Amino acid sequence: MEPGPLGASGPAEPGPRVRGGCGAAPAAPASSLAVAAVLPAGGSGERMGVPTPKQFCPVLERPLISYTLQALERVCWIKDIVVSVTRENMEAMKGIIQKYQHKRISLVEAGVTRHRSIFNGLKALAEDQPDSKLSKPEVVIIHDAVRPFVEEDILLKVATAAKEHGAAGAIRPLVSTVISPSADGCLDHSLERARHRASEMPQAFLYDVIYAAYQQCSDYDLEFGTECLQLALKYCHVKAKLVEGSPDLWKVTYKRDLYAAESIIKERISQHICIVMDTKEDEEHIGHHLEEMLKNELNHVKVTSGPLGHAGRDLQQIILEQCYSFVCVNVMLSAFEETQKLLNMLKESHLSVLYPVVVISVHFLDYKSVHFDHKMENLMQIRELAKEVKERNILLCGLLIYYPQDEQKLQDSLRQGATIIATLIKERNSAFIGQLLVA
Amino acid sequence: MEPGPLGASGPAEPGPRVRGGCGAAPAAPASSLAVAAVLPAGGSGERMGVPTPKQFCPVLERPLISYTLQALERVCWIKDIVVSVTRENMEAMKGIIQKYQHKRISLVEAGVTRHRSIFNGLKALAEDQPDSKLSKPEVVIIHDAVRPFVEEDILLKVATAAKEHGAAGAIRPLVSTVISPSADGCLDHSLERARHRASEMPQAFLYDVIYAAYQQCSDYDLEFGTECLQLALKYCHVKAKLVEGSPDLWKVTYKRDLYAAESIIKERISQHICIVMDTKEDEEHIGHHLEEMLKNELNHVKVTSGPLGHAGRDLQQIILEQCYSFVCVNVMLSAFEETQKLLNMLKESHLSVLYPVVVISVHFLDYKSVHFDHKMENLMQIRELAKEVKERNILLCGLLIYYPQDEQKLQDSLRQGATIIATLIKERNSAFIGQLLVA
Repeated sequence: MEPGPLGASGPAEPGPRVRGGCGAAPAAPASSLAVAAVLPAGGSGERMGVPTPKQFCPVLERPLISYTLQALERVCWIKDIVVSVTRENMEAMKGIIQKYQHKRISLVEAGVTRHRSIFNGLKALAEDQPDSKLSKPEVVIIHDAVRPFVEEDILLKVATAAKEHGAAGAIRPLVSTVISPSADGCLDHSLERARHRASEMPQAFLYDVIYAAYQQCSDYDLEFGTECLQLALKYCHVKAKLVEGSPDLWKVTYKRDLYAAESIIKERISQHICIVMDTKEDEEHIGHHLEEMLKNELNHVKVTSGPLGHAGRDLQQIILEQCYSFVCVNVMLSAFEETQKLLNMLKESHLSVLYPVVVISVHFLDYKSVHFDHKMENLMQIRELAKEVKERNILLCGLLIYYPQDEQKLQDSLRQGATIIATLIKERNSAFIGQLLVA
Repeated sequence: MEPGPLGASGPAEPGPRVRGGCGAAPAAPASSLAVAAVLPAGGSGERMGVPTPKQFCPVLERPLISYTLQALERVCWIKDIVVSVTRENMEAMKGIIQKYQHKRISLVEAGVTRHRSIFNGLKALAEDQPDSKLSKPEVVIIHDAVRPFVEEDILLKVATAAKEHGAAGAIRPLVSTVISPSADGCLDHSLERARHRASEMPQAFLYDVIYAAYQQCSDYDLEFGTECLQLALKYCHVKAKLVEGSPDLWKVTYKRDLYAAESIIKERISQHICIVMDTKEDEEHIGHHLEEMLKNELNHVKVTSGPLGHAGRDLQQIILEQCYSFVCVNVMLSAFEETQKLLNMLKESHLSVLYPVVVISVHFLDYKSVHFDHKMENLMQIRELAKEVKERNILLCGLLIYYPQDEQKLQDSLRQGATIIATLIKERNSAFIGQLLVA
């Protein structure tokens, strides 16, 4: 079992985590506690102002819901994940599960409201289901398909609190003051902000509590209600424990939230850059100067470096640690030999299934000593190479750095090179694949 | 007076609008209504998780507050804008006003809380201020420095409603259910979402009402209160009119909101692309094929094209209409002559004061008929040219499109060229200036 980079109770965000490196044992609830999750995903996303329901909107070309599934399936102690989707999106959802290799997912048909979709998910987990592979859990977590940044920590807190209290939910401070309008559209009164909270997701319940609540609740509740905690209170007299959540729990609601989600994900998968040098240990390798520049350019980013190695064992480890950004520094004349080796290793791994992997092939050009045209023509091969690996979600770009004799000018070239590298990694844009940029 | 592209009551967003092309007359309130605005900007931005207060965080390299000032100053009928800033940020704020040429702004010192900062702004507008250039307004608008996307429409609505009702404020539907916790951290009750609203900004008041409220209110209110509408109700018995606002009113609160703001601004300034061709009207100009490809690539984007013209009069008009994205298509061998002319016109205008302007110089390369090396060397001049105009906030990039005999291959080249152009315009990233990209 592979603990995440941030420790056992660290974030379960769709960030740098090993595929299948499922949640950490020490933080898991008592092994006797059977936990399942229900994810209502039948919404139409009308607030978004776009025709695609927001849970299916692409973020870095992958549907938003896939990030949320990734965040849940990484948590080992969640045994089953039941997703409610509308009949018309059922095939698309199956395609997503297959393409992104999601595990432990069951699909049920969504109802016309959020509450009905949740109820359908709960029914699928009931013990009297014939032919079902699902077993009734002790605790069920309810989460939103459009909250992809949920952390293992908060999932654990609500599940544990639900076991004790019968129900639990994540809360956040209010961002705006809440007011109550009078019938004529004027201010009746404003609520004291400090005495109220926003109810967020995830929430968790003893399965028997929430199932009983849904079985008893009225059609009006199912049509117009919004709050599961309220159902548990109203029908089962269970007062939910409230758990403070992090800002990351926010719900993707508007188009701007999709922009924010994409930026956050790009930032998270760009936190580690691996620089591969094409020669053995050599303190004078120009790659080390470039590495220093990159460290200056990118605060808080882990930069590791080294030769590809005979068997590339170090690199295998780095791939396992989910580094999605590679810089291959070539000082030899062999052009793409090292880059090609790196690309082969990446293709063999499944690293690029979930996120685009950026590879920047860096070359140096001493105007005076090397034949310019010959080298250039050689380097233009990068276009074909890039086209080939693009299909595997690997974004390959070339960078040619001038290598003047003048020390100051060399520093300028390296600095510009570092800026270009940093931008290619941060933006992760496929339009620039196969380009040979010049610094 | 210059009506905005979206009509008289259209958005006052920091988007495509003529510098100084201040709000449209037909929508302005009765000319007798004197309106001022107060903008508290003394916050420390602790929720953001970054050391810089959020109103000073850069968005496309310009501080967020500058976008909000731009949105307010564009509205002609707002006579004065009073901004409260802390003593330590006073000089920085003066620098921002000078650099981005903001008008009608007065600075006052912020208090330690939001309410005290607003009160300081109101005091500066009182009639008994000695040596003040400000005059007491009939209506005062209070807005947040961190809500840059406020529209003229909603400003007008709250100002007009305040004149009639004494107070008015923008509201939005709640995104999350609001709950009330009990003392032991459990759910006491949840509020019916449909019967409550989030109170947003802008708000507006009869000056005498809100000034009187602040003069009477307690230290407790000034320290812990959050809601101006509540003060008007409590001390002046004025029930504020509530006005439904658009989602754009949202407050930049977390780091993710900065990402969202930057994406929205980039999108807004990329809605119009001007393609300049280097020859007279000619239906067969390859630029027209590129134009078609671009239109396919970019939905909802206005693409205009034409020759630079003898006196460049058309282009002057396009610059006035605030087009921030230019593609200069050169089929002649004169390399950068047309691009240089375009750059000169852009430099003479003040278009790039507020937003970075993207210029892409497109060239074609027929491998067989033109001497490759000569052309390449010629085109490498773009690096120097780009460095020169970067200081003026103009981002120049080169694009070399292969021009094969094969019609299908030409289409592929053009399509790739259009993708690269679209990305350069959308991302507006300075790291790629001076590059010669290849399609």
